[in-house]
Amino acid sequence: MAESGEVLIVSAPGKIILHGEHSVVYGKTALAASIGLRTRVRLRSSSNGATRLHLASLDISREWPLKNLSHAIPNMHGRQNPAPPQPDLILVLRQLSESDKGDIENSALLVFLFLYTHICSASGLPALDVHIESELPPSAGLGSSAAYCTSLAAALLTATHNISHNLSNSRWQQKDLELINKWAFQAEILIHGNPSGIDNTVSTFGGALSYQSGHISELKSIPPLSVLLTNTNIPRSTSTLVSAVKGNVNKVGTAAAACFDGICFSCMPRKTCIFSDMTLHCQFPDIYKPLLDSMGAIAVEGKRVMDALADRMLPEVSVACNTLESKDDLFCIWETLIDVNQQLLMAIGVGHPCLEQICRVTRKHGLHSKLTGAGGGGCCFTVVPPESTEGGWWFFG
Amino acid sequence: MAESGEVLIVSAPGKIILHGEHSVVYGKTALAASIGLRTRVRLRSSSNGATRLHLASLDISREWPLKNLSHAIPNMHGRQNPAPPQPDLILVLRQLSESDKGDIENSALLVFLFLYTHICSASGLPALDVHIESELPPSAGLGSSAAYCTSLAAALLTATHNISHNLSNSRWQQKDLELINKWAFQAEILIHGNPSGIDNTVSTFGGALSYQSGHISELKSIPPLSVLLTNTNIPRSTSTLVSAVKGNVNKVGTAAAACFDGICFSCMPRKTCIFSDMTLHCQFPDIYKPLLDSMGAIAVEGKRVMDALADRMLPEVSVACNTLESKDDLFCIWETLIDVNQQLLMAIGVGHPCLEQICRVTRKHGLHSKLTGAGGGGCCFTVVPPESTEGGWWFFG
Repeated sequence: MAESGEVLIVSAPGKIILHGEHSVVYGKTALAASIGLRTRVRLRSSSNGATRLHLASLDISREWPLKNLSHAIPNMHGRQNPAPPQPDLILVLRQLSESDKGDIENSALLVFLFLYTHICSASGLPALDVHIESELPPSAGLGSSAAYCTSLAAALLTATHNISHNLSNSRWQQKDLELINKWAFQAEILIHGNPSGIDNTVSTFGGALSYQSGHISELKSIPPLSVLLTNTNIPRSTSTLVSAVKGNVNKVGTAAAACFDGICFSCMPRKTCIFSDMTLHCQFPDIYKPLLDSMGAIAVEGKRVMDALADRMLPEVSVACNTLESKDDLFCIWETLIDVNQQLLMAIGVGHPCLEQICRVTRKHGLHSKLTGAGGGGCCFTVVPPESTEGGWWFFG
Repeated sequence: MAESGEVLIVSAPGKIILHGEHSVVYGKTALAASIGLRTRVRLRSSSNGATRLHLASLDISREWPLKNLSHAIPNMHGRQNPAPPQPDLILVLRQLSESDKGDIENSALLVFLFLYTHICSASGLPALDVHIESELPPSAGLGSSAAYCTSLAAALLTATHNISHNLSNSRWQQKDLELINKWAFQAEILIHGNPSGIDNTVSTFGGALSYQSGHISELKSIPPLSVLLTNTNIPRSTSTLVSAVKGNVNKVGTAAAACFDGICFSCMPRKTCIFSDMTLHCQFPDIYKPLLDSMGAIAVEGKRVMDALADRMLPEVSVACNTLESKDDLFCIWETLIDVNQQLLMAIGVGHPCLEQICRVTRKHGLHSKLTGAGGGGCCFTVVPPESTEGGWWFFG
């Protein structure tokens, strides 16, 4: 356990999906990159026989006397090989975490209790003061839940000496990062049911990565590009939107079998003639499936452009760049990919008038924008040309 | 020849493309329907030894003394089997039709001289007064050139007794319509280089039709649906836009070999990062080709919906309707097809901010809109729900 009086501070970044949201669910490639907005955990030992959690961004404070948590401690298992909590233990954790707040708050409390009881119980639960604050808006497609899970897992694993305490350059070694990532993924499962693992992996390792059919690979390098993030402030639920797409395509035989939070398509409203009308997607795979193919191809090309741009913009990078395209050419291709990807997301029905407005306004200034994440609201990112020197941008990478 | 003093009046309608613009060039299905905007030809014999043409909509009047036209008369060939004019004769016709006006005006004069000299020269050119006016705006994607060619061919064929003079219900018999259509197609070739033949066929036969790879088939019946047409007043050139798409896809091996008016892709401006940047479409068939597949599937489904809607809305229609879908269900599917089709046209780069604005404004009123024709400007049509009783709509069919 961390020494008494010692304060641990750990942070983890959010992410944007550059390309491949939705199509990734059907086995296509997706590209994600970390962004400079982070969630920070401040942790220290307490001496009052209780563990306190303060979630500043959600305006929640909770305290659990240690004696009340004894029945929530799992049977011992290896902290180096995290497994999902048992169903009966989930029930206990849910009862302990219940609040009169909303779903986001309840999920945050549940994840805290899960990680705390499972990581810290080797020799009896320690009393802790945990303060968490985040620059990431929830339900905006920026991976706020993954940054929460990752930073919390990292703080608890560090405090319990499951990973190294003394770091060089504030960065853990690869094996420590892998353990953090495993725990964060288990916590993400508690929130999202069947997450891809992209969000927690980006939050743990930073940088950018590509993902396809369960296989995650880090991009060797990413170019120093900037994006402007705009939040529509329209909340959306990834699992609801993904389920809607998934429910449809299962029926046409292209989707992997999976289930998100028990939400099934028949729960969606009918008669709206947009995305939530399952007619088009269920009955007409000839219309719908090619769009997912195209989105997958956009992500593959996007990865190539990122690699080639890194080579052009970072002379020290040793990416094998077999292209004759200039930096401007490559950036121009990326902008086109952004535009086509955005139109296709609109075509499959996950747009929103606010997202369209952002795209329209930025286009008037010669800039290219795309929703990121589930869509139907959430955030939009706008690509900033490399030569732009204006301040106030968030950098990813 | 028509009797002296007798006035012939002939009209032909314009059209909209319901689905399949651009993708039709790559062998996919397209659906077109005639609209209630027409071009009218008023023709009578003249006695002053000259043929006069007045194009009211273009504010052009021209007169050709018959003696000046003698060298423009083709060697005799069957008026029942129209063939393209010889290249040397085209040159003569171009010289005779030249004006200081724009391309549209020059094309209109050229087509008049072509049809006039080729249809009317069997026993020496007759002196004619020809007055043409149109409700169809030029360069708006509404088939104004086809309606011009069709109505003019019909008037000249009628005046020269190549087709029936005495009609029941103002409608020619099938064989007469076929001859009109052949001449109108030859005239369209003069204007567009390599037209699909959709426009002149719809203008000749009315109603709606589907087209794929040179094969045109009339829809058995079309439902009594209405559309609101909105003209962006942004002129566009079909052949330039189609060439741009075609030039690209030729290179990825999916396009038929064809050439439009000598315009090739390399004439297009570069560095604009939109449609006219050939990078995306040339180099990335994996992104682009699926979108054409999807657009083709939309047109196929649109045809099914039209047939089924006709069965639901016209009890006398004997279309085999194997669907259990209600009229509302079918209309709802059509609206969704309109939306997805519009997004895909935007994705391949043939949108325009004005078209987007029309879609946005009509959507606010619960209506669904799509560009029609080449895009990049031109017209947008908005589907009017069957129960709508407001006046001022244009009916197609």
